[in-house]
Amino acid sequence: MSMQDRPLKWNADQVIAWLRREFPQAFLHGGDFQIENLEPGQARVRAVLDDTALRPGGTVMGPAMMKVADVSCYVHLLGHDGEQAAHSVTTNMAMSFLRKPEPGDIVCEIKTLKHGRTLVVMDLKIYSAASNDLIANAEMTYYNAVR
Amino acid sequence: MSMQDRPLKWNADQVIAWLRREFPQAFLHGGDFQIENLEPGQARVRAVLDDTALRPGGTVMGPAMMKVADVSCYVHLLGHDGEQAAHSVTTNMAMSFLRKPEPGDIVCEIKTLKHGRTLVVMDLKIYSAASNDLIANAEMTYYNAVR
Amino acid sequence: MSMQDRPLKWNADQVIAWLRREFPQAFLHGGDFQIENLEPGQARVRAVLDDTALRPGGTVMGPAMMKVADVSCYVHLLGHDGEQAAHSVTTNMAMSFLRKPEPGDIVCEIKTLKHGRTLVVMDLKIYSAASNDLIANAEMTYYNAVR
Amino acid sequence: MSMQDRPLKWNADQVIAWLRREFPQAFLHGGDFQIENLEPGQARVRAVLDDTALRPGGTVMGPAMMKVADVSCYVHLLGHDGEQAAHSVTTNMAMSFLRKPEPGDIVCEIKTLKHGRTLVVMDLKIYSAASNDLIANAEMTYYNAVR
Repeated sequence: MSMQDRPLKWNADQVIAWLRREFPQAFLHGGDFQIENLEPGQARVRAVLDDTALRPGGTVMGPAMMKVADVSCYVHLLGHDGEQAAHSVTTNMAMSFLRKPEPGDIVCEIKTLKHGRTLVVMDLKIYSAASNDLIANAEMTYYNAVR
Repeated sequence: MSMQDRPLKWNADQVIAWLRREFPQAFLHGGDFQIENLEPGQARVRAVLDDTALRPGGTVMGPAMMKVADVSCYVHLLGHDGEQAAHSVTTNMAMSFLRKPEPGDIVCEIKTLKHGRTLVVMDLKIYSAASNDLIANAEMTYYNAVR
Repeated sequence: MSMQDRPLKWNADQVIAWLRREFPQAFLHGGDFQIENLEPGQARVRAVLDDTALRPGGTVMGPAMMKVADVSCYVHLLGHDGEQAAHSVTTNMAMSFLRKPEPGDIVCEIKTLKHGRTLVVMDLKIYSAASNDLIANAEMTYYNAVR
Repeated sequence: MSMQDRPLKWNADQVIAWLRREFPQAFLHGGDFQIENLEPGQARVRAVLDDTALRPGGTVMGPAMMKVADVSCYVHLLGHDGEQAAHSVTTNMAMSFLRKPEPGDIVCEIKTLKHGRTLVVMDLKIYSAASNDLIANAEMTYYNAVR
């Protein structure tokens, strides 16, 4: 895909530094985020989850997985567009929960499907870090604030 | 719809009491939940959100709205099936973000579309409490643990 | 919702006349369409389906229901924006199939959730005409060609 | 994924022969289907579309792409489970339309995300055959009639 040629504006450290300064609440509540990979057209984000992310049954609660998906997309867009992406917002998400996650870290792999002038559509595969099982599939669309 | 005839097992107070005891982490992180209405086939849940639910731009962050949607469905199912619903889990969600939410409380209105033996499908309309604007539309499907 | 104040450009007869002239293939393949209601912010479209819309099991095939949903949205947009909506296209659909449809006609009820400058989001409830059972729920988003 | 180890019950010729006999209406209306690949966990289906699949603007109409997606899933399931899959039905679809398709053939690539006892979830990427552009992304869930 040609969007793999689209260069990054910020590397992983720059994205994390901006987020910690401008959006610290993204790191509250259930865990921390690490960017394991960030390159043109794709990213890999790990959420280090603590016990407050668990639900009855001892598995990761749905909202924790939804948050990982959404924050990972924001990381992906900040990497590609820098601070101009700050006001980009989610317009649509479709997410399926495939298997019961193991307690513990979750890894989200993102690929750009389309990086249009108005909408950015991303494909997400979410894994339990412990087992490497695919636990969720998602598609997220952001309204692109970059002009 | 005939599922409006399906009686409740628990009222709002019983649902909240069970959640506070068995799933206190649902109330952590950004706010508190109140059940404004719970009757056969429909429910109305209010999330009292604090500033840790805000994102750059001064609006409610996406993950907070996703959490309200998911917890509201769980409330709805606990009301209908009582403790038997404890292990019901989300299998699918589709959510569209329609308008920028005002900072502050969010209200989620749920209707049962299908309460099947295996899957429960729910329609959700989410409003800013301050303006009464429709800010999100969602459909959530739970895998029904009740047997 | 304020979009209920948005007046129509075309009435049902004008929409059907334009479709029969400019997009006759919409009426091919499995049935005919009738606009039962068209007013600001909502519409009701009936698909008169023949036996080529059936699938193994004697029920209406999924693609016939998807087509009814998509054509109904196009009808809805043509009513609101007239010929300017001709090049509006679907960007996103989420559809759940709730109950096995009876063979025969299908009715689709649409409400506008958001009629934005760029995107139009619509809520769809689809019924078997014979039984009045809700057989599918959908949300469709169109990219708005109107400027 | 371990479901790649799940052997096929039918090969491509057996699937096509069964469909032509039991579900000939799948081949009506806008084109023909060819199975280009069918192996454990994945399939590739080509729809040979004629001019009745076009819409105003000279591009492939949305319902034609939706039909390709749905029939391709059915092909995929028949390959894996043989005639036992005949009564499997779509329960959920989420589809995004990414780029304007060129007139002409469409190719759908499917991967199994989960082949559960109750639900089968599939990831679909849809391409214009002429340009090889990714024109749509979808996730489809079937209710598994196999017992």
